[in-house]
Amino acid sequence: MESIIISNDNTIIKLYRRLASSKKERYALNKYVLEGARLIDDAIKEGANLSHLLVTEFAVDKNKDVLSQVDLKKVRLIIISNELGIKISATEKTQGIFAICDMPSKLLLAETLNKGGKYVILHKLQDPGNVGMIIRSADAIGIDGVILSESCDLFSPKVIRSTMGSVFRMPIWWDMDIDKVLSAMNEQEIETLAAVVDGDAYSIKDYKFNENCAVLIGNEGNGLDLDIIQKCDKSITIKMNGNINSLNAAMAAGIIMWELMN
Amino acid sequence: MESIIISNDNTIIKLYRRLASSKKERYALNKYVLEGARLIDDAIKEGANLSHLLVTEFAVDKNKDVLSQVDLKKVRLIIISNELGIKISATEKTQGIFAICDMPSKLLLAETLNKGGKYVILHKLQDPGNVGMIIRSADAIGIDGVILSESCDLFSPKVIRSTMGSVFRMPIWWDMDIDKVLSAMNEQEIETLAAVVDGDAYSIKDYKFNENCAVLIGNEGNGLDLDIIQKCDKSITIKMNGNINSLNAAMAAGIIMWELMN
Repeated sequence: MESIIISNDNTIIKLYRRLASSKKERYALNKYVLEGARLIDDAIKEGANLSHLLVTEFAVDKNKDVLSQVDLKKVRLIIISNELGIKISATEKTQGIFAICDMPSKLLLAETLNKGGKYVILHKLQDPGNVGMIIRSADAIGIDGVILSESCDLFSPKVIRSTMGSVFRMPIWWDMDIDKVLSAMNEQEIETLAAVVDGDAYSIKDYKFNENCAVLIGNEGNGLDLDIIQKCDKSITIKMNGNINSLNAAMAAGIIMWELMN
Repeated sequence: MESIIISNDNTIIKLYRRLASSKKERYALNKYVLEGARLIDDAIKEGANLSHLLVTEFAVDKNKDVLSQVDLKKVRLIIISNELGIKISATEKTQGIFAICDMPSKLLLAETLNKGGKYVILHKLQDPGNVGMIIRSADAIGIDGVILSESCDLFSPKVIRSTMGSVFRMPIWWDMDIDKVLSAMNEQEIETLAAVVDGDAYSIKDYKFNENCAVLIGNEGNGLDLDIIQKCDKSITIKMNGNINSLNAAMAAGIIMWELMN
């Protein structure tokens, strides 16, 4: 093992910081970062490819269980000072354990869609917490996959963190072109359903969902674009109480996924 | 109208900041703060008692519609400098409109519960975003009221903001003692249901909810305390996919409320 790294100028520390802050860097290097014992433990258990594990002096003892699962022939272990851990952390109270991880290979949508599957398509969702929460909920509820199109980056630290490990378990297609997604659904005869706030759309309470279908969820403020709604097979809605403004996008997605599966 | 306030040391500015940051101050003065045009517009429309309205020079023109609804005999209008607006704002890009608002009178639970109603009780919820999102969703879904017990403060700026105005529309009982809440439910013959992660509890998918019932949602990390679960009439659960760790507390609450009403 190398000596303890204390410098901000260390190559690996600089790499970690660039990957944490820049989508461009992530896609240039096909790498992203993880922080926290539980998330890194999930990553290891689910077979994600870690290239570097950064642990503060304080955290070495506390994370023996995580560290004992790591194959040091494949993963480079780096001990950093506690001060440096605080500096690179995105949380208020860091656990002092970080990793750099290889992005998985991107799945080809048409080849990997399950004909009898149920999918959620996120179009122009901008809030990382919402995207993460939808992925986590999709995993819990048993959805077959999540597709991201023009939404915030799957590999941003905030999205990764808020998936609570579901990012390692769920089939996810990221950075997809919406027209290609709709064509692939069409080819596989998967019904596409636009989630809208519109009294004339089918109420999810009464609608009989097909065995295979994909629900589109739109932007937090503006919903789905009209041309996207028109390209979908049908529109569905959550009938709401009184004259209030719709549910939060993640909550709406969660309730629709629940109805889809139950 | 007074001259433009530019000083951090102004009495009203100091009051605003104390109310924004301290629960103790809020309850000592029975006041809380609001920020943003939409939220303040909702507050006015729903009849909340504003005592002060603080608007930056920039924001006066933009918020003519909001300002035109204000009775200046009752509300003190204060114009502040744009710089001061940025300083007191809790958001990254402030709209420059703020208010100080009187807390509503606290409702007596036993006297105000609707015998045929459906309620959500939040016990030891610590995340303001979760509490706000549950209140917003309860409003959208048509729940009769939300009760807070040992949870984060309803009148904290983060909770208020994430309710998206539902705080002015929903019956909410805050800062309640859990034993008194359970007794009141009992007296009114409202069935109490503990939401748990437990395969032996009733699945919400199959459970036939009473016309009148109250669901208890527990802490984000630890769920409900065992003694609270035992004091409830029944336990209910969301059956989940595989060996993953439950849904986010707000999402779980949303799905349960949806099942409760549908």
